[in-house]
Amino acid sequence: SISSEEHDRENDEEEPRTPRPGDGKAIYMVSDGTGSTAENSVNAALGQFEHCLVDRGCPVSTHLFSGVNNMDRLIEIIKQAAKEGAILLYTLADPSMADTAKQACKVWGVPSTDILRPTIEAIANHIGVAPSGIPRGAPGRKPLNEDYFKRIEAIDFTIKQDDGALPQNLNRAHIVLVGVSRTGKTPLSIYLAQKGYMVANVPIVMGVELPKALFDINQEKIFGLTINPVVLQTIRKARAKTLGFQGEMKSNYSNMEHVRAELNYANKIFAQNPVWPVIEVTGKAIEETAAVVVRIHHDRKKKCFIPRISKRY
Amino acid sequence: SISSEEHDRENDEEEPRTPRPGDGKAIYMVSDGTGSTAENSVNAALGQFEHCLVDRGCPVSTHLFSGVNNMDRLIEIIKQAAKEGAILLYTLADPSMADTAKQACKVWGVPSTDILRPTIEAIANHIGVAPSGIPRGAPGRKPLNEDYFKRIEAIDFTIKQDDGALPQNLNRAHIVLVGVSRTGKTPLSIYLAQKGYMVANVPIVMGVELPKALFDINQEKIFGLTINPVVLQTIRKARAKTLGFQGEMKSNYSNMEHVRAELNYANKIFAQNPVWPVIEVTGKAIEETAAVVVRIHHDRKKKCFIPRISKRY
Ligand SMILES: Nc1ncnc2c1ncn2[C@@H]1O[C@H](COP(=O)(O)O)[C@@H](O)[C@H]1O
Ligand SMILES: Nc1ncnc2c1ncn2[C@@H]1O[C@H](COP(=O)(O)O)[C@@H](O)[C@H]1O
Ligand SMILES: [Mg+2]
Ligand SMILES: [Mg+2]
Repeated sequence: SISSEEHDRENDEEEPRTPRPGDGKAIYMVSDGTGSTAENSVNAALGQFEHCLVDRGCPVSTHLFSGVNNMDRLIEIIKQAAKEGAILLYTLADPSMADTAKQACKVWGVPSTDILRPTIEAIANHIGVAPSGIPRGAPGRKPLNEDYFKRIEAIDFTIKQDDGALPQNLNRAHIVLVGVSRTGKTPLSIYLAQKGYMVANVPIVMGVELPKALFDINQEKIFGLTINPVVLQTIRKARAKTLGFQGEMKSNYSNMEHVRAELNYANKIFAQNPVWPVIEVTGKAIEETAAVVVRIHHDRKKKCFIPRISKRY
Repeated sequence: SISSEEHDRENDEEEPRTPRPGDGKAIYMVSDGTGSTAENSVNAALGQFEHCLVDRGCPVSTHLFSGVNNMDRLIEIIKQAAKEGAILLYTLADPSMADTAKQACKVWGVPSTDILRPTIEAIANHIGVAPSGIPRGAPGRKPLNEDYFKRIEAIDFTIKQDDGALPQNLNRAHIVLVGVSRTGKTPLSIYLAQKGYMVANVPIVMGVELPKALFDINQEKIFGLTINPVVLQTIRKARAKTLGFQGEMKSNYSNMEHVRAELNYANKIFAQNPVWPVIEVTGKAIEETAAVVVRIHHDRKKKCFIPRISKRY
């Protein structure tokens, strides 16, 4: 059996590895806030270079500096970027900080781009109001609002409804996901919960009847998930190994015959419930499936000329 | 008692309300992908206009169009933007789509900004490779990688460890959060799990001893959360109402004396465990607290000249 210390060591390796020299071109991301805007943008942008990253011999490393709220720290980071031959992508609300970043990068020969400024300026021109220049988390800003607390409640609700728990609450969900094991119901539920949706997920298991409550609620809230059997088998094999499944449990769970039979069983249920949209998740990242669910969900609630998801600020 | 239908109606209202005419200046967001990059950027940018949004008489509405992968659809959206007097912020990987967006917006008098292009170009110049121009989700792209599946496992782990469950697994966590009820342990755990960290959270309840396992694991993984008592009382009152707490349960949970006593009890525990960083969460959004946790976590693992979070691609 593995000691706690060994476990710790093992887990450390599961986390993103710290880049070493020779790990490729460095991208510095600097924010006076959490850095998540820079991180998200850089991640999406790197998708455009998938054909050449690590395994094609063009490795890249990213380095996030969050909460950068003073000039000295900023300059220090820029000097370090120069040493490492990095570029600097930044989001800094205070115009004098943003200007310093730009000028200092020029001085030290660091290519730089302000990620958010064009978006801020487009909005400023549109609404005819100047941006505050105050970073998030600065003292004196607005308290968290009702929307924020509703998102927290949505997460609490969604966790409690995981894996078919508490069918008596299905009526309270905004969205209900149905599918066989390892179609991504749990991570998809959680992703949607963070966007404020109260989500429940109900597993389809061959030979186990779905809860009656599922058929009593508004059927337009229910979404089926389906997946290619070969891909599902691969995912289940990995899972069975992680969970240490033994004997019959193991063989059934990832056995190809069984996987096919269970998917057929699910597809029959879907055919009997044609109101449920069925989403093919094979090879889709969670956020991609989520985008499809949310699009259909909003489209059903509000028949629009062109499907869209609207919010008010 | 409330019928299922009434519940449905109630929940519908909890979701983001659909904007109506007069809801303020419209911002169109268009993506060939999920739209989350545009959404995140616009959200962050709107933070710069908090001083003037809804309650200060300068309302704004956002409208997300995701999965826009053909010209006709794009043109349709731009014409509609013109009708509604909207601006258009877009992320389109295919250069001919991006160019069409730009030109059509000019023709129809819609102010427009390409949100991601400057970031993509900065990276292209830096690494000396041209972007693929292929949107996410297009056929023939790379399969989901190991990192992706580790994130899924982290979510599964974290859900199972919520609220002090399975203390025997604490050694497997990358991060352990400790704090009294409603300091945001659950949503913070989930947020971190989505970034790939295996997180466990353990509640501090006055009169209940912490699990022994907590003191056997690597203490550098443990983070304490604390909060202002007045703010905590407000949050707990709302929560007690939602959950329908009754009698003594209710009065203790959100009673000011009790809240203060429980926070003191927590602070004593924190004082006895000086290795645990204590993070003040009052008024902080989950992602802001998460940024602090991750910063400390990485800094501890790799003593750096300037704290940073690094990843390799
Ligand atoms: N609620 C907010 N209020 C003011 N500025 C914000 C807000 N959210 C994000 N920002 C700014 O937007 C940029 C990106 O934020 P972040 O994603 O936290 O790094 C930073 O310059 C933040 O200061
Ligand atoms: N993994 C990826 N591969 C290729 N392009 C991507 C990837 N992720 C995001 N993008 C592109 O980045 C932009 C923003 O994506 P999204 O946040 O999904 O709207 C879109 O133009 C996407 O096509
Ligand atoms: Mg699950
Ligand atoms: Mg909790």
